[in-house]
Amino acid sequence: MIDQTINVIHYGLGPIGLETAKLVLSKKNLKIVGAVDISKEKAGRDLGAVMGLGRELGIPVTDRAQDLFSAQTADIVIHTAGSRITTIYSQLEEIIEAGINVISSSEELLFPFTANKGLAKDLDRAAREKGVTVLGTGVNPGFIMDALPLFLTGVCQDVKTVRVERFVDAGTRRLPLQQKVGAGLSPDVFREKVSQKLLGHVGLVESLQFVAHYLGISFDRIDEAIDPVVAEKAVSTAYFDLKPGDVLGIKHTVKGFKGAAEIISLDLRMYVGNDDPHDTICIEGNPTISLRIDGGVAGDQATAAILVNSVPGVVAARPGLVTVKDLPAPHFYR
Amino acid sequence: MIDQTINVIHYGLGPIGLETAKLVLSKKNLKIVGAVDISKEKAGRDLGAVMGLGRELGIPVTDRAQDLFSAQTADIVIHTAGSRITTIYSQLEEIIEAGINVISSSEELLFPFTANKGLAKDLDRAAREKGVTVLGTGVNPGFIMDALPLFLTGVCQDVKTVRVERFVDAGTRRLPLQQKVGAGLSPDVFREKVSQKLLGHVGLVESLQFVAHYLGISFDRIDEAIDPVVAEKAVSTAYFDLKPGDVLGIKHTVKGFKGAAEIISLDLRMYVGNDDPHDTICIEGNPTISLRIDGGVAGDQATAAILVNSVPGVVAARPGLVTVKDLPAPHFYR
Repeated sequence: MIDQTINVIHYGLGPIGLETAKLVLSKKNLKIVGAVDISKEKAGRDLGAVMGLGRELGIPVTDRAQDLFSAQTADIVIHTAGSRITTIYSQLEEIIEAGINVISSSEELLFPFTANKGLAKDLDRAAREKGVTVLGTGVNPGFIMDALPLFLTGVCQDVKTVRVERFVDAGTRRLPLQQKVGAGLSPDVFREKVSQKLLGHVGLVESLQFVAHYLGISFDRIDEAIDPVVAEKAVSTAYFDLKPGDVLGIKHTVKGFKGAAEIISLDLRMYVGNDDPHDTICIEGNPTISLRIDGGVAGDQATAAILVNSVPGVVAARPGLVTVKDLPAPHFYR
Repeated sequence: MIDQTINVIHYGLGPIGLETAKLVLSKKNLKIVGAVDISKEKAGRDLGAVMGLGRELGIPVTDRAQDLFSAQTADIVIHTAGSRITTIYSQLEEIIEAGINVISSSEELLFPFTANKGLAKDLDRAAREKGVTVLGTGVNPGFIMDALPLFLTGVCQDVKTVRVERFVDAGTRRLPLQQKVGAGLSPDVFREKVSQKLLGHVGLVESLQFVAHYLGISFDRIDEAIDPVVAEKAVSTAYFDLKPGDVLGIKHTVKGFKGAAEIISLDLRMYVGNDDPHDTICIEGNPTISLRIDGGVAGDQATAAILVNSVPGVVAARPGLVTVKDLPAPHFYR
């Protein structure tokens, strides 16, 4: 499938970036040729040390991306350094300017053509000029609540509604994820943080826009709600001891309406103590398809996987800012 | 998404062909410009009459494909006229020779590169020379037992085994399907027909080869078994009254081994009186994914849907004999 070695630069060495680098190391036809991270604890050290491999890889982590791009030829950058397009825009610009393809875990980059229309247009133009491909992907957004539902509609003669639930037991996840969903806060602080846009799942609206766009649906109204899930009894995780009244996590829903009819509904609940984690997708149509993944797809492993599995497709793709729907779907390879 | 009208010729007007033509009629940017069927009851009549629309479409059904291709410009042929590549090869040749893209429901065409290697090579060469795309797709094979499992591996860091079950209640399906699975036969006659290759699900081996190919798995051994499911109590359908000892339908399994380890298992059971129809897919890996579709994906509607939903992608694709994995996945469109 992959005939020649693909040279990879990792940009961003947080938990997802490190997990991704580990996976790239295991792939026969992928080769890490550089790594970027701006943190003082990582820049200057060998990537193997930063990864905790117990051996050096001969790849110094640098905080000067542009210098690396000038010195080192690469086929693709795997970018795991931010969620918001406004935050990462200049990083993406530099990568494109260097003539390197890029896959980013940026949640907003899944479908930037609505909320970040102008920036998306600029990225697309720059990528075409430089002959490189830019893709945003991941598991959520990127798979469970958007690409997989859309894939299922491929066997539908008609689609009336799409309903997706993703219920995650945050108690089994790493600390930053538990903090990200608001575990341990009081409901008041939670709501305060929501109003400051410090809480909420980045990309949920993009998932909705992605599905609606490809199904040819335009909404009269989009409702978004971010609420705390509050403990009724004591719950403990490796990081928190929560008592009744404490916030366990988040319920974030996005719904698209035509008139009074709810056409697409995305319901994401990530909280500690969720004892029925699952992903469900219901396509009401002809035929109706009702799918359930018990336990749900584990987020962190899966995100690293889809980034790496998408590499060959992005390297082979036409230039421009593309979506996961524009490319043949990625699959596991050895 | 689809900017201009795509002109379609239907080749084969059996149940799936008619269902497909009905769906094409409902699509804004698809236009039927011709129809081929070799049966005396259909050739010469108007397509609208053959479809039972109660109105004429001004499209005469012809049994002379080549004459139609000479007289009529078309972008794509939707071919629903046979399962075996050896049977339909000359039809595909004519379509390609006429410079028209083709999507076929031929089960063997999903992945012809192993069992029909030589013919596949010839089709690919002819298609490239003529600048047209040739695709085999459907629901089974084409989706549930191959493309969907492979799609799920896109979020996997590792895949150890793949197990797919498709349990269909044939009692709710059309008569030809009930006959195709052997309902009403005695077990002896069933086994006799299996030995004559008159029973068994065409394409199950192709599904296995498809998944194995893209996951980079080569088997030491492939086991295939076709057995009757026998009635323990009386079962009635719209077409059959079956008594204990009668055949209800088929259990067809294909398994790929490495040494003693079963790596991929496809288990298809289609019989009348199946009271737990479902599709399940289990990817054992990192992460493990266990998916269930209650009731299963309804075959006939879904097959017509995926053929029609694949049209824009095939028209836009690179020339050659391609698989569903080579193209962006189809999705419902209006």
